[in-house]
Amino acid sequence: MEDNARPTIGIVGGTGDLGGGLARRWAKAGYRVLIGSRREESAQAAAEALAAQASEAGWDQCDVEGLGNVDAAQQADVVVVTVPFASQKDTLLSIASAVNGKIVVDVTVPLVPPKVARVQMPAEGSAGQIAQSVLGEDVRVVSAFQNVAAAHLQTDDPIACDVLVCGNSKDARQDVIDLMGTIGMRGVHAGLINNAAAAEALTSVLINLNRQFKTHTGIRITGID
Amino acid sequence: MEDNARPTIGIVGGTGDLGGGLARRWAKAGYRVLIGSRREESAQAAAEALAAQASEAGWDQCDVEGLGNVDAAQQADVVVVTVPFASQKDTLLSIASAVNGKIVVDVTVPLVPPKVARVQMPAEGSAGQIAQSVLGEDVRVVSAFQNVAAAHLQTDDPIACDVLVCGNSKDARQDVIDLMGTIGMRGVHAGLINNAAAAEALTSVLINLNRQFKTHTGIRITGID
Repeated sequence: MEDNARPTIGIVGGTGDLGGGLARRWAKAGYRVLIGSRREESAQAAAEALAAQASEAGWDQCDVEGLGNVDAAQQADVVVVTVPFASQKDTLLSIASAVNGKIVVDVTVPLVPPKVARVQMPAEGSAGQIAQSVLGEDVRVVSAFQNVAAAHLQTDDPIACDVLVCGNSKDARQDVIDLMGTIGMRGVHAGLINNAAAAEALTSVLINLNRQFKTHTGIRITGID
Repeated sequence: MEDNARPTIGIVGGTGDLGGGLARRWAKAGYRVLIGSRREESAQAAAEALAAQASEAGWDQCDVEGLGNVDAAQQADVVVVTVPFASQKDTLLSIASAVNGKIVVDVTVPLVPPKVARVQMPAEGSAGQIAQSVLGEDVRVVSAFQNVAAAHLQTDDPIACDVLVCGNSKDARQDVIDLMGTIGMRGVHAGLINNAAAAEALTSVLINLNRQFKTHTGIRITGID
């Protein structure tokens, strides 16, 4: 990521709820956003819909483009991967050569349908560790955003959820914390990529709570304000 | 647990920081508390120290006794187990016949020293699942308190940390939530015992944050107030 230049953000799986919400927030904050999808037409339609929303709402800017996942990853400086767990490995393999040397933000939650409210972690420990393993050490994998409700990203309100940010590169974690700060989220350094297990497991707990309370829950770290 | 009667609470490993803090809070709240230790003399010393503290501070009551772990478990209605992960299985096996039919609150965090700030979950999934497996289905295992800083329990202030409460018996979870409500903590139903993995993994993240911020962090669930 160059100093004094806003990175272009590629969102692989950017037509989903969470990816689309992140695209919307970063586009509104003035970043160039590349929405990726397995189907380029879907990505283009999502980009057009977002541009139309921006125009209607009178945003100052909305620099967004829809592309295939590999092109989005190739042309971006920072690549965010928001795909279902079942698609994670194949998706990462497909973009591996396009992300070498870059920061990849892995948002995968290892849910195993239909029991998504039950923690069922993978043998590898976490989806974050799978991502680092698949992409190799030349890619700085940062795990984040697993506990943020997609519905909240569709608003302009500050988000009442802290983001646990894990990864083996502290500098990369800080870059991602800075990026989420521009869209209303507080990120905290939560440790090495192994620790992604905590945020990933917590998602099933929050799904439980969402069902009980009919709302979108999140977490706050206490004691650091 | 009988209606209209306060259960006697046994704390296996009750001479440690967290167990001692829970003992102090429940004793002050008017519960009969049995502090257990592998060494009965240590438990008696801890009970005497707590009684002296209560006397000096002028508490209304402090019904506390020090016993060996097995006796504490045997004589209690609700048994809280707060021992290091390395001692968990042996401790549970030693009290197994004493806790049949009871609620056992497992507070074990599967930390693997020296890297306690790194999530290193056991192959079984979580310490909570290990407890349920060791004790068998006649024991209602409830996992709780992994994210509470022991230092906070030594104060009389409300605790700025929600407690994720997991277990396969909803009634048992509710009993434990009620018990923690009497000592200043909000518990939430966080799902089946598998979900203990979330709270357990989170502890390593909080240790990370404690080191960064030189404080005792905790978590709050947002969106349910």
